[in-house]
Amino acid sequence: MFKQITSAQNKEIKWLLQLQEKSRNRRKERAFVVEGQREISLAIKGGYTPLHLYFVPELIDLQEVVKISKSNTQNPAAITEISHEVYDKIAYRGSTEGLIAVFQSRENKLEELEFETKHPLILVAEAPEKPGNIGAMLRTADAAAVDAVIIANPKTDLYNPNIIRSSVGCLFTNNIATGSTSEIIEFLKNKKIPVYAAALQASKSYHEVNFRQASAIVMGTEATGLSEEWLKNSTQNIIIPMHGEIDSINVSVACGILIFEAKRQRSLQP
Amino acid sequence: MFKQITSAQNKEIKWLLQLQEKSRNRRKERAFVVEGQREISLAIKGGYTPLHLYFVPELIDLQEVVKISKSNTQNPAAITEISHEVYDKIAYRGSTEGLIAVFQSRENKLEELEFETKHPLILVAEAPEKPGNIGAMLRTADAAAVDAVIIANPKTDLYNPNIIRSSVGCLFTNNIATGSTSEIIEFLKNKKIPVYAAALQASKSYHEVNFRQASAIVMGTEATGLSEEWLKNSTQNIIIPMHGEIDSINVSVACGILIFEAKRQRSLQP
Repeated sequence: MFKQITSAQNKEIKWLLQLQEKSRNRRKERAFVVEGQREISLAIKGGYTPLHLYFVPELIDLQEVVKISKSNTQNPAAITEISHEVYDKIAYRGSTEGLIAVFQSRENKLEELEFETKHPLILVAEAPEKPGNIGAMLRTADAAAVDAVIIANPKTDLYNPNIIRSSVGCLFTNNIATGSTSEIIEFLKNKKIPVYAAALQASKSYHEVNFRQASAIVMGTEATGLSEEWLKNSTQNIIIPMHGEIDSINVSVACGILIFEAKRQRSLQP
Repeated sequence: MFKQITSAQNKEIKWLLQLQEKSRNRRKERAFVVEGQREISLAIKGGYTPLHLYFVPELIDLQEVVKISKSNTQNPAAITEISHEVYDKIAYRGSTEGLIAVFQSRENKLEELEFETKHPLILVAEAPEKPGNIGAMLRTADAAAVDAVIIANPKTDLYNPNIIRSSVGCLFTNNIATGSTSEIIEFLKNKKIPVYAAALQASKSYHEVNFRQASAIVMGTEATGLSEEWLKNSTQNIIIPMHGEIDSINVSVACGILIFEAKRQRSLQP
């Protein structure tokens, strides 16, 4: 019925592995790999287009696979049956979900970002490094239903399997864009969105800021914080006051504190 | 001058490796291993007693080692010179710090906890699993200068090298105790400290709680949340309202949001 692959040495499987491993290949092919039924349905819910599906017949119902394939209404995703052995070669988790999908990438262009509100809450992260922190920030952004997440000067492409994994699919549920720091600052200025840069030193406590209006909260890296360009071009640099011996809060924790302070303010009666 | 070890096969080095790897050995020996000058000085600052120091003469100044040794005033820590090769065998990081220390463990008994204030802010984490999350919570606790961190039903001993590492030494700067959930509930009740349990479902938003009085903020695990025992014995179950597709906030991020809301309230004029 379907094309079958039983050897991990198969050319298409090698292509898939390269797509997983190499950012360059993902960029060239404009495609990326997603593992797991939950993540795959979130990608589809997020409007991503599935191109290829690879399934293990003993592990997942064929009807389910066909349904996912048809979510691409104009051009149903190609379906290939793979052996358990091949699946284990591709899949990271020791799970038994039996489904791997290749999706079409998005360009995540800044100019395509649209806001449904006049007072958007935006999270900007400059050059975040660890996939675990990026994933945790995307999870926070989803839970807070921010209007957009913008990654400045990304160090990796967003479709890195470690980012997809550690975001538990929140990569697909957020409205995401990328750009250089200069482009993003210009974009925010044009839209008259105030910029609150999380600084390692700043005079203003984060909870003294009025986040009820449009706000872009900008996070730097754990190691070096934000670049001068952000600190100079911000509406206000803000700090989380700390009182410990080390004062070394995790960047995704700091991000959660700032984003949820904005949410808290917005939930109160004006 | 000092005892020298140049072979990774040396019995003492094997003992050290076992101490690093096995919780059972750490419990039996009442000792644990710390790597890195920064972490070692934080342990000393936190009042821990160094027992043995292993140094690589090309990498660290002997005077510095002797000084650290003498921080144990009654009984200076034993000093052993090790070769670069032996150091690489023990050290996790590819760093060039050249110092490994064995410290005496603490029992971290609940009944030894003392508070300097009538309104302590306490973080309780029940059965936290991932060292990365424990580390991030300890970093938050340090930055917020909470009065104590209590680990309920710990799944691992606190002196696990991964916890030390991911806490960047905040394991040593916090006032820490462990106990069973029942013991901790009794302890908090005896001290009349209100318990705020972070629940996956709860009617009260975290920011509607008055954290200016004594407060124990209790976090469960990411996978299953808090046990019934906590939820039933809390003063108030609280929730972080979420509005996303997935609502899957990281547990250490959630912890940061709650602890810093308490700090925010406490920083405002009454």
